[in-house]
Amino acid sequence: MNKELLHCERVWLNVTPATLTPERADYGLLPLHAIGVRAGNIAALVPMAQLSGPYPAHWRDMQGKLVTPGLIDCHTHLIFAGSRAEEFELRQQGVPYAEIARRGGGILNTVRATRAATEHQLFELAVPRVMALIREGVTTLEIKSGYGLTLVDELKMLRVARRLGESLPIRIKTTLLAAHAVPPEYRDDPDRWVSVICQEIIPAAASAGLADAVDVFCEQIGFSLAQTERVYQAAVDHGLPVKGHMDQLSNLGGSTLAARFRALSVDHLEYLDQQGIAALAEHGVVATLLPTAFYFLKERQFPPIAALRQAGVPLAVSSDINPGTAPIVSLRMAMNMACTLFGLTPVEAMAGVTRHAARALGEQERLGQLKLGMAADFLVWHCTHPAEISYLVGVDQWVSRVVNGEETLA
Amino acid sequence: MNKELLHCERVWLNVTPATLTPERADYGLLPLHAIGVRAGNIAALVPMAQLSGPYPAHWRDMQGKLVTPGLIDCHTHLIFAGSRAEEFELRQQGVPYAEIARRGGGILNTVRATRAATEHQLFELAVPRVMALIREGVTTLEIKSGYGLTLVDELKMLRVARRLGESLPIRIKTTLLAAHAVPPEYRDDPDRWVSVICQEIIPAAASAGLADAVDVFCEQIGFSLAQTERVYQAAVDHGLPVKGHMDQLSNLGGSTLAARFRALSVDHLEYLDQQGIAALAEHGVVATLLPTAFYFLKERQFPPIAALRQAGVPLAVSSDINPGTAPIVSLRMAMNMACTLFGLTPVEAMAGVTRHAARALGEQERLGQLKLGMAADFLVWHCTHPAEISYLVGVDQWVSRVVNGEETLA
Ligand SMILES: [Zn+2]
Ligand SMILES: [Zn+2]
Repeated sequence: MNKELLHCERVWLNVTPATLTPERADYGLLPLHAIGVRAGNIAALVPMAQLSGPYPAHWRDMQGKLVTPGLIDCHTHLIFAGSRAEEFELRQQGVPYAEIARRGGGILNTVRATRAATEHQLFELAVPRVMALIREGVTTLEIKSGYGLTLVDELKMLRVARRLGESLPIRIKTTLLAAHAVPPEYRDDPDRWVSVICQEIIPAAASAGLADAVDVFCEQIGFSLAQTERVYQAAVDHGLPVKGHMDQLSNLGGSTLAARFRALSVDHLEYLDQQGIAALAEHGVVATLLPTAFYFLKERQFPPIAALRQAGVPLAVSSDINPGTAPIVSLRMAMNMACTLFGLTPVEAMAGVTRHAARALGEQERLGQLKLGMAADFLVWHCTHPAEISYLVGVDQWVSRVVNGEETLA
Repeated sequence: MNKELLHCERVWLNVTPATLTPERADYGLLPLHAIGVRAGNIAALVPMAQLSGPYPAHWRDMQGKLVTPGLIDCHTHLIFAGSRAEEFELRQQGVPYAEIARRGGGILNTVRATRAATEHQLFELAVPRVMALIREGVTTLEIKSGYGLTLVDELKMLRVARRLGESLPIRIKTTLLAAHAVPPEYRDDPDRWVSVICQEIIPAAASAGLADAVDVFCEQIGFSLAQTERVYQAAVDHGLPVKGHMDQLSNLGGSTLAARFRALSVDHLEYLDQQGIAALAEHGVVATLLPTAFYFLKERQFPPIAALRQAGVPLAVSSDINPGTAPIVSLRMAMNMACTLFGLTPVEAMAGVTRHAARALGEQERLGQLKLGMAADFLVWHCTHPAEISYLVGVDQWVSRVVNGEETLA
């Protein structure tokens, strides 16, 4: 019996690992292996050919099944109250956006409902959304605030996110997105809202340990480059890494700014230019593609995929789940759209929800690969080809799901 | 107590029905009602304002929740074996289709795997797909044969479809689609395969009661207009209604032919012309939109929605679930795409998966509306606005699901 396996608490025998390690440009498939877990980490990854019994107490024979790192959804706005369905109805009937906003539609509709909801209500509303992602194979999930837009309500959202991680078998990473929209109270003085973010909300979230990162919607209809820089500076001052909603509808130079602040990721990127790409490449910033929003907003401008590839920028893929522009609660659909709409290969889509998504969360040392010493977050699949994960959407395909070494069976 | 309610076996009190009846162009929402069920049918639909207690033994207070007819997915190829994931991988890497076919890809890949699978294996593979649709709110599901392409294997597929309906809480309608592709054995003489369909397969399926309808893929890469007519004539001779995969990639005049045969529906329709539209309108044929295939094939030619609307042709919406061109196991995603890609309103999408989908299956007298005497197939929803059903995709939203009067709770 191999020594490293003997010390494992659990062992999965006869698995076919898709390691997603950066050394290989493909899935990093290995021949039949055993995976052993100890203290929540991958403690053994041994070719079956090198094994001899007896096996440790807790082992299962997986009969050659495919194993991949757990899927990571690195950009969502999954906590919200209220419904934007009526707005969808009006939009599809051809009512102009200005009229919809006049009738109380748009993001402020969600802000109103989210402010009015209790922490418990927000939690209950989010649970089925998280469960849907768990069924798809998601093991790590980023959730942003941004529908509270007061100190109290932003922290409320972040607490709900933390509670989801404590209550359900999934890792949650939280991002403070108080700079999502200017709240109605500050409509006439957005800079004052930025001051509240920098001087009150970021310090409070940081000292309560509620935010793992700080995000800004840098856009003509969002926050200016100067405002974004103020928020980033406050984040850095409080020891929090930054990210950005960048270049979705126009280019304000946000990606270049974000790279200067060593952002974990910049996201959307339909209008990203060559200067921004160079900045991302130079500073190792992840480019996160959000094809569901592209689809739902009927956009025509594609993110510069070929140039990003050529520059060697890591491409993450995420669902962007939110009630306004991406009401599709499915990371697998986002992977399919990344392939179908943006021309990614299934290998790129898979790396985009594992290794690169981990980096977009600052977790590249711990998550997103099958590798000794990394967290034991992985899935055992029914399907035999990893491309099936971005191909056949909507049907459960894992037989076993392991998060932090703890197993759930389908 | 109202007499009609007293005779019901079960009653749901305080529901808000979206009746989807043709008398109204909207959802047909009614104020608070009670719905009573008897012998699998809707036996009472009474305004709460007209009620007085006591209530019958089995009643539940639904506290105002939205109730809609059960969703109907009227066009799927949900029974298949094998995987086309590797083909997807190649396609996304830029390998031309001819080369993929040379390597054994394409529909014949699925035919090979489906022929090799036992009835039990096909059943087991289909169950999670059906369960995914059940979770979305589907209560009636059409399933086509077409990956067997021998007498034995086509009947095998149809038997699996019937067994799904007997084993799971869902209505199944079966369609014989032996004219899906020319099997390799008849590559040099497609007309002989058409003869086998007409003289052997249709008679066998009809006499065994395995097919509720007969379908043809009428296309340059499928079957010609003359071949389609032969299959339709054989179907009619055996008392089976017809439908057609029409005008997806080109216009052969298939919709006009189908209308002449009083087809239940013609499906796809990207290249449908004005003459075809007039024929559909004249004969009351349903036009079924399959936006998922449009999305996945990256098509540019849109079905003539405005002209179909103007002609008063009923528009159904369906998922087209199949391993080659629509690997998205979700009717709700198809509804969302019908709105987002084809510009339907959520009301049209909802009618497209209820009243009009029922007509596409010849079940318009029994299914697709909340109406006295119709089958008791309905859903009680968490969400309050019916547009939410085509809007927020991927998350379970029903609290109660009733098929033929039998209730399942979420
Ligand atoms: Zn976002
Ligand atoms: Zn089809």
